[in-house]
Amino acid sequence: MSAAAAGSAAADPRYADGCAWIEGELLPIAEARIPILDTGFTRSDCTYDVVAVWDGAFFRLDDHLDRFERSCRLGRFNPPLARDGVRAALFDCVRTSGLAQAYVEMIVTRGVPEAGERDPRRFRNRFYAFAIPYVWIARPEQQAEGIALVVARDTQRIDPAAVDPTVKNFHWGDLVRGLFEAYERAAHSVVLLNAAGEVTEGPGFNLFAICDGVLWTPAAGVLEGITRRTVLELAERRGIPTRISMFGVERLQAADELFITSTAGGVMPVTRLDGNTLGDGRPGPLTRTLRQAYWDAHRDPAWITPVR
Amino acid sequence: MSAAAAGSAAADPRYADGCAWIEGELLPIAEARIPILDTGFTRSDCTYDVVAVWDGAFFRLDDHLDRFERSCRLGRFNPPLARDGVRAALFDCVRTSGLAQAYVEMIVTRGVPEAGERDPRRFRNRFYAFAIPYVWIARPEQQAEGIALVVARDTQRIDPAAVDPTVKNFHWGDLVRGLFEAYERAAHSVVLLNAAGEVTEGPGFNLFAICDGVLWTPAAGVLEGITRRTVLELAERRGIPTRISMFGVERLQAADELFITSTAGGVMPVTRLDGNTLGDGRPGPLTRTLRQAYWDAHRDPAWITPVR
Repeated sequence: MSAAAAGSAAADPRYADGCAWIEGELLPIAEARIPILDTGFTRSDCTYDVVAVWDGAFFRLDDHLDRFERSCRLGRFNPPLARDGVRAALFDCVRTSGLAQAYVEMIVTRGVPEAGERDPRRFRNRFYAFAIPYVWIARPEQQAEGIALVVARDTQRIDPAAVDPTVKNFHWGDLVRGLFEAYERAAHSVVLLNAAGEVTEGPGFNLFAICDGVLWTPAAGVLEGITRRTVLELAERRGIPTRISMFGVERLQAADELFITSTAGGVMPVTRLDGNTLGDGRPGPLTRTLRQAYWDAHRDPAWITPVR
Repeated sequence: MSAAAAGSAAADPRYADGCAWIEGELLPIAEARIPILDTGFTRSDCTYDVVAVWDGAFFRLDDHLDRFERSCRLGRFNPPLARDGVRAALFDCVRTSGLAQAYVEMIVTRGVPEAGERDPRRFRNRFYAFAIPYVWIARPEQQAEGIALVVARDTQRIDPAAVDPTVKNFHWGDLVRGLFEAYERAAHSVVLLNAAGEVTEGPGFNLFAICDGVLWTPAAGVLEGITRRTVLELAERRGIPTRISMFGVERLQAADELFITSTAGGVMPVTRLDGNTLGDGRPGPLTRTLRQAYWDAHRDPAWITPVR
């Protein structure tokens, strides 16, 4: 970890595309690899979290670390690093990359089983982390126009009775299938329904609907996103009523405004649903207010942790 | 690929624990790694197949390659290798490892996206393969005694409306959760039910029940296992009636015999279900017949392909 220890302000260009922490070693992202036999891959038996760095500071780092610890506990993972070690690895990745705007991921996997061992309780868990340039589900110029979303017709969201979506996971088979459908229907992304026909979430994001001034978001069967929570908190501070509840696709169709939220892009307006234009086809006023509030919050000392 | 090209009968000891094919290079399994940003990992966006080598010969290789090609087609993967290339990579892995009994896996992933690219149609797919020593879900000595199985109470199988189980995939979150439950209930493994309470499959295996001389196995919501197919074909040749149908847990409870099937172990008798002993507590006669027929079939020239 010499590069990180040096803590040099001038970043090494080999790390410009990102830096990963692999078994205690910092590597340029293009060289960062995991064992092919890690059950984090061969059984997708892992959990993870993603925190953003914006203008040189982590946003809500402790909330992400709290959620990661909860995911580890519920998923029965024993990360080889305690919270301080995880935190240090994230700082090392970001500092070494020299990125001021970064997408920072921490992962714990069940690990590589000893030959013949099948009991996951006995695997030695592994930890990985990396920082890469900030990821946008929709880039700012696309956000100005708004996202075209479709409701998946062919694919249902994985049921929480099978895989708990509040334990952040890589089980994206349904979401990727939905993404293919979105692209084929000339949309940017997709939202999936559950078996009861209720709205859940999309690939990497939570969804919000504004109906008669009330902010709705699905209550269950979704990741409890930190950006989702931020939006709910910011709305409450502004006296915007919120409703965390299950609802059907008709609420989306009747909504005045729609937006999606993610650590990868913040608050992103939706202006088309299933090929139909919402309202006047431009990001709505409440969405714009919350989007601005979200980015303003990145200067709130209570929520930021400078990298240096 | 010099080691493979040499085709030497004396295997290089560095490959004794297995050999992997990573981007055209053969590596000892302990050194075989995949990029941390491969969406085969970060979205579990991949498909795979596993074929066994027994006594120096692949078993039903073309059937596995057929299924792998079908999985790629349905999962919309474009493997960088055509069938002949895949086949050659598998032979290279096995020959280089020197293993006479091997578990041979082929994987295609969606690949590593270019920076900022989110459209999975535009990712360059990747191919990986490896051969490791033959894997047993239950070792022969445990098979002699029989497996203790539980029906999962806490976890449901992922619904085919979300992720198609006939496209072999690493979405094992539900199966691993079930395995934890099995170990806590002092069993060896677990079978999961679907949302309707019907029996599906377990971690890495299909399930069969023998009721009044009829061989039952679930029709849907399961991998269409090659070992499952082999058992159905062997049963039909012997005039044992088969029924491919959905059924509830009460059929398992009332069964005269139960067994599981997998490329990782063949036909494996179940002698306890949810803590209750089946029949006289020993592998049943029809199970033993089919198990013997399964292993005898490994000498059938129609089904084997010698590695050398």
